[in-house]
Amino acid sequence: MKGSTLFFKSSPSVAAAAAVGGKMEGDGPMCKAFDKINEDPYFSAETFEQGESKLLKETVLHALSKGGLNEGDIDVMFGGDLLNQCVGSTYGLRCFDIPYLGVYGACSTITEGAMLAALFIDGGYAERALAVTSSSFCAAERQYRFPLNYGGQRTPTSQYTATASGALVFSGEKLPPFVRAAAIGRITDLGVTDANNMGAAMAPAAYSTVRSFLDDTGMSPSDFDCIVTGDLGKVGSRLLCELFERDGTDIRSLHLDCGTMLYSFEEQDVHAGASGAGCAASMLAGYFVPRLRCGEYRNILFAATGALLSPTVSQQGETIPAISHALWLSSSPWNEKNGGAL
Amino acid sequence: MKGSTLFFKSSPSVAAAAAVGGKMEGDGPMCKAFDKINEDPYFSAETFEQGESKLLKETVLHALSKGGLNEGDIDVMFGGDLLNQCVGSTYGLRCFDIPYLGVYGACSTITEGAMLAALFIDGGYAERALAVTSSSFCAAERQYRFPLNYGGQRTPTSQYTATASGALVFSGEKLPPFVRAAAIGRITDLGVTDANNMGAAMAPAAYSTVRSFLDDTGMSPSDFDCIVTGDLGKVGSRLLCELFERDGTDIRSLHLDCGTMLYSFEEQDVHAGASGAGCAASMLAGYFVPRLRCGEYRNILFAATGALLSPTVSQQGETIPAISHALWLSSSPWNEKNGGAL
Repeated sequence: MKGSTLFFKSSPSVAAAAAVGGKMEGDGPMCKAFDKINEDPYFSAETFEQGESKLLKETVLHALSKGGLNEGDIDVMFGGDLLNQCVGSTYGLRCFDIPYLGVYGACSTITEGAMLAALFIDGGYAERALAVTSSSFCAAERQYRFPLNYGGQRTPTSQYTATASGALVFSGEKLPPFVRAAAIGRITDLGVTDANNMGAAMAPAAYSTVRSFLDDTGMSPSDFDCIVTGDLGKVGSRLLCELFERDGTDIRSLHLDCGTMLYSFEEQDVHAGASGAGCAASMLAGYFVPRLRCGEYRNILFAATGALLSPTVSQQGETIPAISHALWLSSSPWNEKNGGAL
Repeated sequence: MKGSTLFFKSSPSVAAAAAVGGKMEGDGPMCKAFDKINEDPYFSAETFEQGESKLLKETVLHALSKGGLNEGDIDVMFGGDLLNQCVGSTYGLRCFDIPYLGVYGACSTITEGAMLAALFIDGGYAERALAVTSSSFCAAERQYRFPLNYGGQRTPTSQYTATASGALVFSGEKLPPFVRAAAIGRITDLGVTDANNMGAAMAPAAYSTVRSFLDDTGMSPSDFDCIVTGDLGKVGSRLLCELFERDGTDIRSLHLDCGTMLYSFEEQDVHAGASGAGCAASMLAGYFVPRLRCGEYRNILFAATGALLSPTVSQQGETIPAISHALWLSSSPWNEKNGGAL
């Protein structure tokens, strides 16, 4: 570890990845990133919360199946989600007889789980490790904001919680893509209090983590095909680019944000874009991993972003702390020959 | 990793540990385990939630101070708690400029955080790593059950959430105690639906993890001075001993439970005992670590236990999944001479 960056010299592989989404995600421009679209917001369960658990479980089953794996092949799984007490994950994963570690980083959860799963492989603590997270529009809306039936109006800076899940299986195989390094985020709170403007709260966290990663590794943004953030949306993405501009770095041409990619701003009513733990997770698993695997991308820095508030403390007038954890994913592993070259 | 057990051949050290508690904890038989007792349930903050964050922050400061450390000496910190979206930790730790990873295992959180912190040391990913968790009676009561002003009656099997926090700093120093191994729990759900009987829901998880650990290591209960569970309380402790009895193992004389130790059943109105993430954490940091350090205990198996429900899914009629993660703590490290002997 140097600064906040973990180096994985053994370059754990993303051996399998899967994404499942809901109707809005299937109607959007990223529909092909999903292994399955389920148009029922209940996922055939009785409640939205149970539906999210089914979505998450189904995504894990898709990932196992795509990797030709059974649950017995997984040594440890990392899960977490936005529901109170992370019940999306605990109820969705209780059917699997696999050691479980719960993680929580709000919408950055997938990069936290993935980094720990990769670390278990790199350190020789596991042969295969899985990371998964999810979000559900209907469950999140009533927990964080208003019951859907209330028909509340949303502000222009608000984002639309994705109904989606992404799962990744890590192993020591030599199958691209590989995790070369990961940056652990610091909690960053610049005083934003508007819970309908998560992008503004999270942009400084993304800046902090990406900046630290570049400083720790001595790399520059142009070493990557793209620098991807989780769900900053339109507002947060603009702020992130401005923060980099202030230190003399122009990342505009390299920056992508899952929150601005998942839906069509023209055809879908999503205000500032997508959000939710499932947004970054499904895009990582269903969009970026396949493009790294086939070599379309050679190196990406993937920094999911999370707002660490709860409705309770938000209503008490608290500001919004945020965090971002990043993964350096590459189509080639470290090796002695390339000395870690790109 | 063998089965669900991680072996730490470098035996990371618990270099520093601290516990802070509230009035009930100070009035109980374990009062000396706490570095500080704060009788104000608000901890001088404006809300119970902010109070829990202050409690947790204060505990970290005590741990750093006892270890002669500054925040710059800690490479990574693991935190999590029972409040929705783990805000006890995120708001309590946002003042520290330390890479942060959020974990969630309900009342088992301290052993999850501690095992990951120890793994970061063992794998060479960090020089010093911190794990912390907390709980607050007043904040938990209104989130999980009823507002305090309601004056609801509690059932005989219910437990009293501890207002307490425990923090541990791990390093590669040669200061006892040492973490020799850790067992990652599996989610266990035997169909208990009574949210006022967490002990019954958690006992099977504790059994599963301790049993797996013994099987993976080939050790027997008598290799330990004691087998400690987190917060099974009176009801869960009896059930755990019965589960072991069924496989022909008598652990009664070796079993301790933080939930039955923290308060006086005679003098304090706590029904089946103590619970809460801070219960196991403060007892580990303030009671067991000092006794391992001075050699009063040579080996303990510490299995914190957590119920992974939320009030929402519980009210929807769901059963209660539970988990338990365990640490093998020893007054001596693994070394080539002893080949890992006790």
